[in-house]
Amino acid sequence: MSTTGKMVATALCGTEMKMLKDKNLQHQHYPIIMGHEGAGIVESVGEGVSTVKAGDKVIALFLPQCGECTSCLNSADNLCIKFKQGETHLMSDGTSRFTCKGKPVYHFGNTSTFSEYTVMNEISVAKIDAAAPLEKVFLVSCGFSTGYGGAINTAKVTPGSTCAVFGLGGVGLSVIMGCKAAGATRIIAVDTNKDKFEKAKEVGATECINPQDYGKPIQEVLFDLTGDGVDFSFEVIGNPETVAAALASCRESHGVCVIIGLIVGVQLNISGHLFFSGRSLKGSVYGGWKGRDGASKLVSDYMAKKINLDALITHTLNLDKINEAVELMKTGKCIRCALLL
Amino acid sequence: MSTTGKMVATALCGTEMKMLKDKNLQHQHYPIIMGHEGAGIVESVGEGVSTVKAGDKVIALFLPQCGECTSCLNSADNLCIKFKQGETHLMSDGTSRFTCKGKPVYHFGNTSTFSEYTVMNEISVAKIDAAAPLEKVFLVSCGFSTGYGGAINTAKVTPGSTCAVFGLGGVGLSVIMGCKAAGATRIIAVDTNKDKFEKAKEVGATECINPQDYGKPIQEVLFDLTGDGVDFSFEVIGNPETVAAALASCRESHGVCVIIGLIVGVQLNISGHLFFSGRSLKGSVYGGWKGRDGASKLVSDYMAKKINLDALITHTLNLDKINEAVELMKTGKCIRCALLL
Repeated sequence: MSTTGKMVATALCGTEMKMLKDKNLQHQHYPIIMGHEGAGIVESVGEGVSTVKAGDKVIALFLPQCGECTSCLNSADNLCIKFKQGETHLMSDGTSRFTCKGKPVYHFGNTSTFSEYTVMNEISVAKIDAAAPLEKVFLVSCGFSTGYGGAINTAKVTPGSTCAVFGLGGVGLSVIMGCKAAGATRIIAVDTNKDKFEKAKEVGATECINPQDYGKPIQEVLFDLTGDGVDFSFEVIGNPETVAAALASCRESHGVCVIIGLIVGVQLNISGHLFFSGRSLKGSVYGGWKGRDGASKLVSDYMAKKINLDALITHTLNLDKINEAVELMKTGKCIRCALLL
Repeated sequence: MSTTGKMVATALCGTEMKMLKDKNLQHQHYPIIMGHEGAGIVESVGEGVSTVKAGDKVIALFLPQCGECTSCLNSADNLCIKFKQGETHLMSDGTSRFTCKGKPVYHFGNTSTFSEYTVMNEISVAKIDAAAPLEKVFLVSCGFSTGYGGAINTAKVTPGSTCAVFGLGGVGLSVIMGCKAAGATRIIAVDTNKDKFEKAKEVGATECINPQDYGKPIQEVLFDLTGDGVDFSFEVIGNPETVAAALASCRESHGVCVIIGLIVGVQLNISGHLFFSGRSLKGSVYGGWKGRDGASKLVSDYMAKKINLDALITHTLNLDKINEAVELMKTGKCIRCALLL
């Protein structure tokens, strides 16, 4: 049930950037082909594959959709049971499909997009509109969908509400877009790098603040600005202290804080008092979208000009320049660098 | 805007029991008249009071409903801004209405129900059905409403779902009733005191388990029992380790854990990984009911035999035997001891 795809566009997502510097996130499976955000064209399919065929444009999915497990069959769920296949760093049949100088090479995140050709399970590719520009829509593979859906599906941002978004990388900016699409009237963007503020305003932030400009905790600043705290906050960094601050920034009664940043391998230390009065803290994976259904729908939305991916792609390089892309991402001026093949 | 009420029935709630043993919850306002769960009859009203009159049966509310603040005006909120009045241990005009041997005595929780007569702000009493038996319906003042509403309003338990309830005191049993009323098909009651299991089954638990009977963490036991974890879990103890276990017992994708136990003054230490895949952790105060509206409605529901309070009242004493009630509550065999005046 495997699909071989020719990758056309991929990118470094925040996850890869964190893995480069955080030992907690590193694994013991080397050599490995990284990359989980990408789009390509099916080159060939294995036995039993029926939902895609050679020539189809597809999105690579780190979150599969098998269509059969209890999560796939539950409209409230998106965490397909086959997601954990990714932890084996192998295909579902237990094999690797990559070799280098005769030795096996591990897969990453059910996808391995940093490669001219990759092999994925059928349930890990989403067929999309044949007219879609792959060098743009690769962003629904992870970053855009995760942020945009985090606001729309997980938080369920309400019209007229006030939101705060902590962390203005590609995913944080996508959260801002989701908040705006859901009708939030006030979207406060928070980052310690003010170079990110212009882009945040371009995609929908109504205010931008730098915590370093204030002599008090950011949650107090947000209470000063809003009176009662924000209705929805989003942590898009993956820092446990920021999670606590984002939760504390919410309205005491109905405030909802969504954790979108990667916080695997860390402990959250949060005052119980923050929950006493009714706040919620929620996790979110792939923005609550089911893998295949969500990616196909979002590409259709892009083609219908309902969502804007172009604003997030600030740089373009060839894949062999990936180390330059790493440096660009570190500056904060690069939101996404499309890596083309 | 004050109301003087003759108390008819009150009780020790878990909060008072925790305050007796937990220094983190104790305050510096002594002497004080404790008690926040009670029902009585209005004896007289002060200037400007229009919504209750002498002779009305009322429920005492630790959570007021001013009807004017942003929370009261928001259908999703119930944390009236005047709730914090309780922290002053005085009336809203800054006075105490109790004296003992000529010296002022502090109020507690906007209510002070351990007294033959008490004085409350108008917004802290809910007028109820004139035919309601006060020695039963006093339970909607706190314990019943907090648990029952935690399941129905905060968790929004869904028909056919699986729930786990950690802690089987009066509030935990009320959570079980709420889960049952919402249509849960499997309700797993968890407590280290097996003497509580009979009552839990009587009010709706389908299974009862004692974590001490297993050689593994309770979350693993619940995964063994359910396959994928529970849809909804409720922590009704106020122990940070149990909060983490209750969250870990939920389904990875859409599981919701509601904290109902009092966790003020403690730090939660929770693995970030538990949130990665989409779980939620929610606080809840007074079960999400607005104070006055909720109490009146629940008493009407009791009169219409839609809810069962009688099962929770296992003992009855006169208020002057309150120290006996403290000892009864410690045994675990007493769910609620109605203290009559």
